[in-house]
Amino acid sequence: MLKTTAKFYSEIRVRYQETDKMGVAYHGNYLTWFEFARVDMLDQLGIPYIKMEEQGFMLPVIEANARYLLPCYFDDRLKIETMIKKEPRVKIQVNYNIYRADEKVCQGHTVHAFIDQNRKICKPPEQFSDALKNLFKDN
Amino acid sequence: MLKTTAKFYSEIRVRYQETDKMGVAYHGNYLTWFEFARVDMLDQLGIPYIKMEEQGFMLPVIEANARYLLPCYFDDRLKIETMIKKEPRVKIQVNYNIYRADEKVCQGHTVHAFIDQNRKICKPPEQFSDALKNLFKDN
Amino acid sequence: MLKTTAKFYSEIRVRYQETDKMGVAYHGNYLTWFEFARVDMLDQLGIPYIKMEEQGFMLPVIEANARYLLPCYFDDRLKIETMIKKEPRVKIQVNYNIYRADEKVCQGHTVHAFIDQNRKICKPPEQFSDALKNLFKDN
Amino acid sequence: MLKTTAKFYSEIRVRYQETDKMGVAYHGNYLTWFEFARVDMLDQLGIPYIKMEEQGFMLPVIEANARYLLPCYFDDRLKIETMIKKEPRVKIQVNYNIYRADEKVCQGHTVHAFIDQNRKICKPPEQFSDALKNLFKDN
Repeated sequence: MLKTTAKFYSEIRVRYQETDKMGVAYHGNYLTWFEFARVDMLDQLGIPYIKMEEQGFMLPVIEANARYLLPCYFDDRLKIETMIKKEPRVKIQVNYNIYRADEKVCQGHTVHAFIDQNRKICKPPEQFSDALKNLFKDN
Repeated sequence: MLKTTAKFYSEIRVRYQETDKMGVAYHGNYLTWFEFARVDMLDQLGIPYIKMEEQGFMLPVIEANARYLLPCYFDDRLKIETMIKKEPRVKIQVNYNIYRADEKVCQGHTVHAFIDQNRKICKPPEQFSDALKNLFKDN
Repeated sequence: MLKTTAKFYSEIRVRYQETDKMGVAYHGNYLTWFEFARVDMLDQLGIPYIKMEEQGFMLPVIEANARYLLPCYFDDRLKIETMIKKEPRVKIQVNYNIYRADEKVCQGHTVHAFIDQNRKICKPPEQFSDALKNLFKDN
Repeated sequence: MLKTTAKFYSEIRVRYQETDKMGVAYHGNYLTWFEFARVDMLDQLGIPYIKMEEQGFMLPVIEANARYLLPCYFDDRLKIETMIKKEPRVKIQVNYNIYRADEKVCQGHTVHAFIDQNRKICKPPEQFSDALKNLFKDN
């Protein structure tokens, strides 16, 4: 199976709404940040997620995983590193590392399936496969 | 214009996720609680919102207003009082009071329009109008 | 290591706010539902989470995992089954299954550490350990 | 009462998590966007909110209001215009307009009180008053 070390970067800033009474960012919000970074990665790959949905494809999350290494706080500027390490077939796995300056604060991954307008599992749209082929060829 | 004093009641419990670093429930969540109570009121009126959407009608919020009288805390049990004070025509206004035991902690209202499958403003579905007619007749 | 098959049950109803444009409940919200069920389980065990925080203990999430088996929809009534399968030492793992009627729609787990007022990892408060001892003795 | 026409601008991008099954951004999220823009405005005024909280002051929302003029969609880039029109005394009102390109999609305001570490209403911290004095002097 082809592998790549290509990495993509996105930035977010922790909102007050995202904190909880423990004084830290609520753990569930990291999945929203993963989503934000995933969408941003697809933009950078030239296959915006919004275009895929317009063409009738959706990429629902079928598995999500996060390990919280250090707490994050209101107003923290975080950098999210996003990777697709293995060439996807039916499922696609996206990996994430979240950094605050040099500290890694969280790592995780999500697994996705492609579904079509009838909500049936399908192959990725050609444009998506082509963009990823380039990604894996480059490495 | 017909008026009614009919009141409906719903209960929620403040989730940890709903708190913020101030140690209180984040103000934006009250709009979600209003929504929860509004859906529950429509159930009690015999016109479940989910059925209306299945029939192609939607009831988007076009105005929202909240006055926060006292802070709410994690695990608080809150009672939401919901009212439609005036018979709706094109727009429908829903009023809310939130109580913790005998204390009123918030009051607010939302204004809604009915839209159809083409996202055009429309008259309320007949079933909805009929249920409300009964409400205003009773009073 | 002691094991138990004790199970706890909680119920939630999917809010409109919890859905996304795919027409289903957004995957990140399941972590909030896990939290709701976890808090409810601790109530049922006689060790309310709010009391633990009042005594200076907190139980942050250090790992979260969810597998989404079937989509959930607005207004779905879901039953969450919550279990602590293994007697906790420093870390405590909580497992969850979410059901809609007879269908399992999601399974997951969270891992937690106890921390004290100085945000240092600590042993569980005595009251917590005692309640769990009973749980594991019963089985 | 002194008035100013000073305006501040912030940008956000609608997240998938922020949409609902109507296919649009859920109305409650606009309050989170207001918060994001308010925090950003205070940065631009040289009085970061996080610094104020570190000094023991908090600025809870005591009233929130939004009028939704046009729906917003996933991935929309929105510009939020933020203003403090009147010199605050005990309460401070912040006004917002949200734009997508040239269209105004939402307008609203929030009202805040300053509270101190004992959660008592207090005068704004000096640094805050000074920054605002400059703002109102300039106009």
